[in-house]
Amino acid sequence: MTAKLEKLVAGLRRGEPASVGRAISVLEDRPELADRLMEMLYPLSGNATVIGVTGSPGAGKSTLVDRLAFDLASNGRKVGIIAVDPSSPFTGGAVLGDRVRMNSATAAPAGAGQIFIRSMATRGALGGIAPTTSDAIVALDAAGFDVVIVETVGVGQAEVEIVRTCDTAIVVLVPGMGDTVQALKAGIMEIADIFVINKADHDGADRLDKEVRSVIALVEDPNGKRWVPPIVQTVATEKKGIKELASEISKHREWAAKSGALEQRKKTFLGDALTRKIGEQLMQRFRGQADYEVWMEKGISELAARKKSPSVIAAEILSFLDRD
Amino acid sequence: MTAKLEKLVAGLRRGEPASVGRAISVLEDRPELADRLMEMLYPLSGNATVIGVTGSPGAGKSTLVDRLAFDLASNGRKVGIIAVDPSSPFTGGAVLGDRVRMNSATAAPAGAGQIFIRSMATRGALGGIAPTTSDAIVALDAAGFDVVIVETVGVGQAEVEIVRTCDTAIVVLVPGMGDTVQALKAGIMEIADIFVINKADHDGADRLDKEVRSVIALVEDPNGKRWVPPIVQTVATEKKGIKELASEISKHREWAAKSGALEQRKKTFLGDALTRKIGEQLMQRFRGQADYEVWMEKGISELAARKKSPSVIAAEILSFLDRD
Repeated sequence: MTAKLEKLVAGLRRGEPASVGRAISVLEDRPELADRLMEMLYPLSGNATVIGVTGSPGAGKSTLVDRLAFDLASNGRKVGIIAVDPSSPFTGGAVLGDRVRMNSATAAPAGAGQIFIRSMATRGALGGIAPTTSDAIVALDAAGFDVVIVETVGVGQAEVEIVRTCDTAIVVLVPGMGDTVQALKAGIMEIADIFVINKADHDGADRLDKEVRSVIALVEDPNGKRWVPPIVQTVATEKKGIKELASEISKHREWAAKSGALEQRKKTFLGDALTRKIGEQLMQRFRGQADYEVWMEKGISELAARKKSPSVIAAEILSFLDRD
Repeated sequence: MTAKLEKLVAGLRRGEPASVGRAISVLEDRPELADRLMEMLYPLSGNATVIGVTGSPGAGKSTLVDRLAFDLASNGRKVGIIAVDPSSPFTGGAVLGDRVRMNSATAAPAGAGQIFIRSMATRGALGGIAPTTSDAIVALDAAGFDVVIVETVGVGQAEVEIVRTCDTAIVVLVPGMGDTVQALKAGIMEIADIFVINKADHDGADRLDKEVRSVIALVEDPNGKRWVPPIVQTVATEKKGIKELASEISKHREWAAKSGALEQRKKTFLGDALTRKIGEQLMQRFRGQADYEVWMEKGISELAARKKSPSVIAAEILSFLDRD
């Protein structure tokens, strides 16, 4: 098995799209191989810039990300895109996403950096969306992509968490959809390092700009030590504002590296990743015990009868299985 | 402490809104008391019907839920609403939600059942949104609410998971926003027990209806054993279609109880809750060990230096701390 994985990693290091894709599939679907693969990929990673993009559905995130990737590739950078799709076994959401987009983004300028796109449909698996996405980022990073863009399709707690941990978090809004209020409600305003007002040629763009500015003003730091998120107006379909966006991303990255904010964010993220792994391994061990299934069955019946609360039953199961 | 909690539970049993609110706050913010409170509430719960509502931002979910609650209350039922807001320390999302809505929904018809609304801003805490929401459902259930409506503000993996575990899952779509494709992408079509097309007086409602029907046709069961989600057209702002929606909810509930689907769903949900608690307690114990902090610090440094992968470091920490 290890020989096969070594071959896969070699292909990935050469930047072969098929190998990169297969590596991500292993991380998604083959938990028994995923740990071993991560062991091999991890030491090769740590160089990519990771950009997160979120915003309400219909904000034109896909087009924006495509254009941004194209612009970065024109400047010779290798760009990997991960589109985070919530689980959809029934609709095959990932396939849909791939099909809709492959055309525009893979047509990178001749002689320029490569663009790779991958939709992640995480089928509500064990660890959920966040861990699988961060593993996929490591894979693209190890494959030598200079920039990894993570784009969320859904807007929820898990998705916001993913974007929050990227080096630079971009929140995309559009005029005329009551978007500020919706974004406020969804808790995504606060994670923005950069705001994009897309479809800026639509009515209401200036009003939205004003609204966002007033929200930013609430967190502005009189000492000037905190980052103040800039607002970039774009019309992604016409490639307007993309260069400005790329430039703001560089500026934020520079500031974050110099101020220590980047290191701090990475530390928090790594700590969370480690805690999650410890939790997984503790649980795995626990599941491996002989009477686990029997006790779970019994516990669920007691819960259904509302005899005891989940934490009481959990404690009982733990103390029993510990005695062995 | 227990005496205080007993007083709180007594108030909650009398249906006092202040006590219900305080109980939910304890479950949200006071982990050291939450387990004990859940122990007291759990045996009192298990009677409420739980309805989940999701759909893209701007679909008019809040208004729809308000109208539905009002209709149910008019028929003498006590209704509790939980609006699931992703974490927002900065904007105070929950406060916003409460303020915007309290007016309409609390003005329940005289002599009718009570309506209680609560926004949950879970501040990205330990367990995340899902566990806190299910605890809050237990609290409302124990307080004697006949119906608990859970409405998500965000649309992501965590939110879809919450709605999926409710007795009846409602997906709200609106015409003219490319909503079917967005919903497909977000993986929410598959969880619907009932589809609502809100703002059905807008252009494109019939086309949307057709699109949804074609999606439903994909999963229709020739043997007629599976539930086929009905489509209800509503104009929530004008209270149109609300009675039809209430009636479809009853029909689904009846079918689910008779077919055994409800019991199956509850079992899965309880199993997940129990597993989660076991995981939490295992982790808690582990965190309590003397050298935990030291080992974590060391592990994060190794990760940052990309020496080893998270799973390798996790295994090392586990094996070391086990030796004690």
